[in-house]
Amino acid sequence: MPAVRRLRVAVSGLGRMGARHATHFLHRTPKAELVAAFTPDPKELAWAKENLEPWGVKLYTDYDALLKHEGLEAVCVATVTTVHAEHTIKAIEAGKHVLCEKPLSTKLEICEQVLSTARRNPHIKVMCGFSRRFDSSYVNAYNLTKSGSIGRPTILRSQTCDKYDPSGFFVQYAQFSGGIFVDCNIHDIDLALWFFSANTSTLPRVKSVVAFGVTALEPDLAKHGDVDNGVGVVEFYDGQIAYFYSSRMNPPGQHDMTEIIGTTGKLSVNANPTTGLLESHLATGIHRDIPQNYYERFENAFVEEARQFTDAVLDGTRVPIDLESSMEAVRIGVALQDSLRSGKKIWFDREGTQVEEAGAKARL
Amino acid sequence: MPAVRRLRVAVSGLGRMGARHATHFLHRTPKAELVAAFTPDPKELAWAKENLEPWGVKLYTDYDALLKHEGLEAVCVATVTTVHAEHTIKAIEAGKHVLCEKPLSTKLEICEQVLSTARRNPHIKVMCGFSRRFDSSYVNAYNLTKSGSIGRPTILRSQTCDKYDPSGFFVQYAQFSGGIFVDCNIHDIDLALWFFSANTSTLPRVKSVVAFGVTALEPDLAKHGDVDNGVGVVEFYDGQIAYFYSSRMNPPGQHDMTEIIGTTGKLSVNANPTTGLLESHLATGIHRDIPQNYYERFENAFVEEARQFTDAVLDGTRVPIDLESSMEAVRIGVALQDSLRSGKKIWFDREGTQVEEAGAKARL
Amino acid sequence: MPAVRRLRVAVSGLGRMGARHATHFLHRTPKAELVAAFTPDPKELAWAKENLEPWGVKLYTDYDALLKHEGLEAVCVATVTTVHAEHTIKAIEAGKHVLCEKPLSTKLEICEQVLSTARRNPHIKVMCGFSRRFDSSYVNAYNLTKSGSIGRPTILRSQTCDKYDPSGFFVQYAQFSGGIFVDCNIHDIDLALWFFSANTSTLPRVKSVVAFGVTALEPDLAKHGDVDNGVGVVEFYDGQIAYFYSSRMNPPGQHDMTEIIGTTGKLSVNANPTTGLLESHLATGIHRDIPQNYYERFENAFVEEARQFTDAVLDGTRVPIDLESSMEAVRIGVALQDSLRSGKKIWFDREGTQVEEAGAKARL
Amino acid sequence: MPAVRRLRVAVSGLGRMGARHATHFLHRTPKAELVAAFTPDPKELAWAKENLEPWGVKLYTDYDALLKHEGLEAVCVATVTTVHAEHTIKAIEAGKHVLCEKPLSTKLEICEQVLSTARRNPHIKVMCGFSRRFDSSYVNAYNLTKSGSIGRPTILRSQTCDKYDPSGFFVQYAQFSGGIFVDCNIHDIDLALWFFSANTSTLPRVKSVVAFGVTALEPDLAKHGDVDNGVGVVEFYDGQIAYFYSSRMNPPGQHDMTEIIGTTGKLSVNANPTTGLLESHLATGIHRDIPQNYYERFENAFVEEARQFTDAVLDGTRVPIDLESSMEAVRIGVALQDSLRSGKKIWFDREGTQVEEAGAKARL
Repeated sequence: MPAVRRLRVAVSGLGRMGARHATHFLHRTPKAELVAAFTPDPKELAWAKENLEPWGVKLYTDYDALLKHEGLEAVCVATVTTVHAEHTIKAIEAGKHVLCEKPLSTKLEICEQVLSTARRNPHIKVMCGFSRRFDSSYVNAYNLTKSGSIGRPTILRSQTCDKYDPSGFFVQYAQFSGGIFVDCNIHDIDLALWFFSANTSTLPRVKSVVAFGVTALEPDLAKHGDVDNGVGVVEFYDGQIAYFYSSRMNPPGQHDMTEIIGTTGKLSVNANPTTGLLESHLATGIHRDIPQNYYERFENAFVEEARQFTDAVLDGTRVPIDLESSMEAVRIGVALQDSLRSGKKIWFDREGTQVEEAGAKARL
Repeated sequence: MPAVRRLRVAVSGLGRMGARHATHFLHRTPKAELVAAFTPDPKELAWAKENLEPWGVKLYTDYDALLKHEGLEAVCVATVTTVHAEHTIKAIEAGKHVLCEKPLSTKLEICEQVLSTARRNPHIKVMCGFSRRFDSSYVNAYNLTKSGSIGRPTILRSQTCDKYDPSGFFVQYAQFSGGIFVDCNIHDIDLALWFFSANTSTLPRVKSVVAFGVTALEPDLAKHGDVDNGVGVVEFYDGQIAYFYSSRMNPPGQHDMTEIIGTTGKLSVNANPTTGLLESHLATGIHRDIPQNYYERFENAFVEEARQFTDAVLDGTRVPIDLESSMEAVRIGVALQDSLRSGKKIWFDREGTQVEEAGAKARL
Repeated sequence: MPAVRRLRVAVSGLGRMGARHATHFLHRTPKAELVAAFTPDPKELAWAKENLEPWGVKLYTDYDALLKHEGLEAVCVATVTTVHAEHTIKAIEAGKHVLCEKPLSTKLEICEQVLSTARRNPHIKVMCGFSRRFDSSYVNAYNLTKSGSIGRPTILRSQTCDKYDPSGFFVQYAQFSGGIFVDCNIHDIDLALWFFSANTSTLPRVKSVVAFGVTALEPDLAKHGDVDNGVGVVEFYDGQIAYFYSSRMNPPGQHDMTEIIGTTGKLSVNANPTTGLLESHLATGIHRDIPQNYYERFENAFVEEARQFTDAVLDGTRVPIDLESSMEAVRIGVALQDSLRSGKKIWFDREGTQVEEAGAKARL
Repeated sequence: MPAVRRLRVAVSGLGRMGARHATHFLHRTPKAELVAAFTPDPKELAWAKENLEPWGVKLYTDYDALLKHEGLEAVCVATVTTVHAEHTIKAIEAGKHVLCEKPLSTKLEICEQVLSTARRNPHIKVMCGFSRRFDSSYVNAYNLTKSGSIGRPTILRSQTCDKYDPSGFFVQYAQFSGGIFVDCNIHDIDLALWFFSANTSTLPRVKSVVAFGVTALEPDLAKHGDVDNGVGVVEFYDGQIAYFYSSRMNPPGQHDMTEIIGTTGKLSVNANPTTGLLESHLATGIHRDIPQNYYERFENAFVEEARQFTDAVLDGTRVPIDLESSMEAVRIGVALQDSLRSGKKIWFDREGTQVEEAGAKARL
């Protein structure tokens, strides 16, 4: 029996991502022990009986019961987005540390409830899982930025493009996703907040946002105020601009891409997407494949996220992503989605309050 | 003596680009004959005495005199931008075909004068030289788009980034350049107009534009209402969006890049900038160089531009770029620069008239 | 307590690779349980006390004692190369399945002893760990080859280049390594055997080999009949050729590369080496890094190797790499090293016996 | 009329390459004037009547008559290979400078006749056109090598792969081509001679060669002692090795590739073949095209070759490629082809005389 102190973790939600999180904590996070899992869904439960139970993981169909699992120390919330906040709040209140899938919520006021709960329980560690921050290429780019290799980070371009799913899934999903800027570009927004504060101790403050979009393949998205291609720009106070693109119709697969442009250099992540190191030279030319989905691209990052969360709890150190930053990402995503819907440019003052073009006067 | 019919061409202006155009018509456009050149500048004249005169090119310091050069058929206008329109109009009125460096003018009303002069002289061919349209990679992308390989072109991302010039040149230049969107992104705007009409017979119509910018390295640009990093979005009626980035501070050199995103595929031009086919594997990693300036990147395109203009005149066919399109590019560039300065999103109705957010209602 | 049946594994040797293998079986091979480890080395033992013992791994300084560890089912032999065969043979005779680091031995007669021991114990699974066969890019290339995507595999080019180590390590190492063709190119030779038999049921048969080399940075290698840059060609009967390059002086890091050339296509693995998806655009050009050593490049492959070995033992299926093939790789490597030393081309008949240019007559 | 002194050039042979050379001298070599051309072939003559005659080029069907063309100063020999030497010798004897397509001849004794004729006429400039030496990527690599960026060049790998031509052309061509090593790899051999002498004043001296080959798609090549895939190694005295690959069956198109490996760095030319800067992201993955033939890849190099030859003659400077080097390339190519046919490794002493394994003793 290991004498090593391991963190006792449960996973809530065993859908696509939940099952992966469970597997990561079970098999790929040495210092964590997956002791329990919750799902109300029969299919997910069947999967868990085959894949988790034999490894000693206790299964629950009642989340409150799970929270009472003896010795449980932390919960990974990976349910549908609409339940993230509720489960996170309950776990905090039950004294469990929380790693919550992004976003906390697609609604700002609910994010705030999570935040205030977390603030009332400062001994509990709560982290929202923005997986890209644990991807080695992004981490290398961040460290180079932090070390001054590119001067002051000034412009950030970032995109999240999903492979087209002809099943209509994206239309259904749009009811709950919060929209393309809250669902897809939230990652890119988080990167902007991360990189733009690499050399400072404070989050950059949004000055204005504007968004555009089209429904090129899925006109029904319009019912939910959503699009399948979005372009957004976020202007920060003090001379930093981030601009984003998201798509639900990238033919070859998943393609995230980010450029961090500083005053003396540019870092480019994933300008040349590829599944690996293989190219085929055929009569039709040279070919390569790219990841088919987000997980295929970021699998290692998810594992690293679980590991770092576990270490932070066990070591009593700060979790790698501040909750304030994660909430700010939602706020910007929601503002972009609002701009998309209204067609208006939206302004904020330095305190973060929405204003009527107040900033425009001081423009140039 | 060649029995081949060759077009007798003159070049007006022998600065950086003018000297290149002169050399292209002299040595690299077999069916053209450079017969004359104009410059009022002593340094440029000295260069011409050494490099053009020995090849039988007559030099002029008076543009009106040049236009009277016996047998002259066409003029390539490559003066400073502020003189483009005047020289073009004079040439048209003197019955000479014109290839004019981009832009016609940084002012819309002056562009209109050129256009109306051209319309009054329909037998005269007038083309504004958007060099990227003659670059083989862009041409291949266009042909694939035209043939339907990527479905309907929906999103276009394009950038023009210049190598940083620490001499302060860009600040001085900003007085005349019309601003970064009119000077740099004009190429990207032209690409949007070109690609978005690849499958139709009409130019896409602008619905709204918005622009942002910062002065990261050259704060003095603000005096001229300009920036050294610009981000702009142009929304077209009927579901097409183009977004642009321009920079005056790209450390390794010149980097244009364009993605044309259609409903079934994406074409990417110059995602991997490089000077050639050489990579160095050194102790410090793997390295490659990129072009140091626009000409190094597009030299062959400029030669091809001269060749196609010459052929169109000799064969009596349509020039490859319509003047209307080139003027529309200026209109969009000016609107972006206006948006940058005012901080406002600018709206247009379907007839191209600026309106007060009229389009917003019909948004989604 | 897991109800899952897990394979009880021990690791022999806890040097650079041994420690990694131990970690993989301990933390990254869910169906294996690292129960014991052997090392006679005090430093390695200290490492193990800190990193293995707390997880319940029993440490041994006597290999025979380790083999008697209760319930032990399999051994991973990762000692210095000179001990590989001895430990493998002992383990087999003790009824333990074996995963042995490559090569079995640098001496053919010792390889044969392993093989005959294995043959006498057919219920015991013995596999030599050629890690590249578990790298996803190579696996994809193999599957494409097997499926006929490139026609008949005809030419294979493969290289193994190590980062230069100025400490003189490679000179010392050359005493035991068997030489650059047996140590480095053994991987490339194994790939040739693998890919050239992708569409057949039998190993390709060597017809002739020839090798060349220089000592560019480490003249002392000559003392051991070795070089720091080697070029070798292996001709197989029935029209297949493999050619290899190995180097101990690659400045940016580790660079393996392979091309599998078939009658209708070519597969290229790692033509563009890179550590990840990051490129830096700096004033000095565009830069990227490559892995610094073999493990950085093949970490995931080693984990997969442990996983597949474990599965094969648990499921009673065939191990993914035949021992005959691994021995053939040594035979070819030794022949290349002999050719390097003698300067002679070496011939074999179809039965694998070395002959005096017997094959030459039938050449063309 | 130009006052510029221009070189009066004729082209002999107007086949595929001859027509291109004629066009380069006519339209793309400002300081040269194409005054005459020779071809005995009616089809080529018809082409010339349409494309050369109108530009004032006099056509000849008698090579001796062409040599008497008034004012003729130089001849570009671009006939079938078997006539290269004869035309070159006649031109030299007629006092004309010569740019001859590679190789001088596929037979060494004939090369020697050219060389001795050239030596008897030292005022006549004679250059064999190895086009790769004028390709900008190779030139950059050479300059980096010369400047010491990679230390001492030690290993050179180079390949020449042609697109498969299913018409049987390569079989017919093999009668005259001298074989794959003399026809294809001659370029790679020339590169080895060029790069290995970048830092010295003397050509490297061959110590031994060995070659292998297969007929994967064209068994009939064997009739001519030739193959469609060749692998060769050339060992030079003083610690340098070059190894080559050539193929007649590369599916996507033409792919030359070269690595120059020095003691402190490696230069890689064309590891990522591509036609331009375009990539297509489609449902089937990411795709790019490569040049379809040698000319598509090296067009600019051929133009530069004509320009540098012209300049050298006009300026009375040394031609960029020594005839001795070009003959040495043939000697090595022929030795490789001999090795391919005999299956034997071939040895040379330091004076270049073939010996019986004399060098073997001093091996290691």
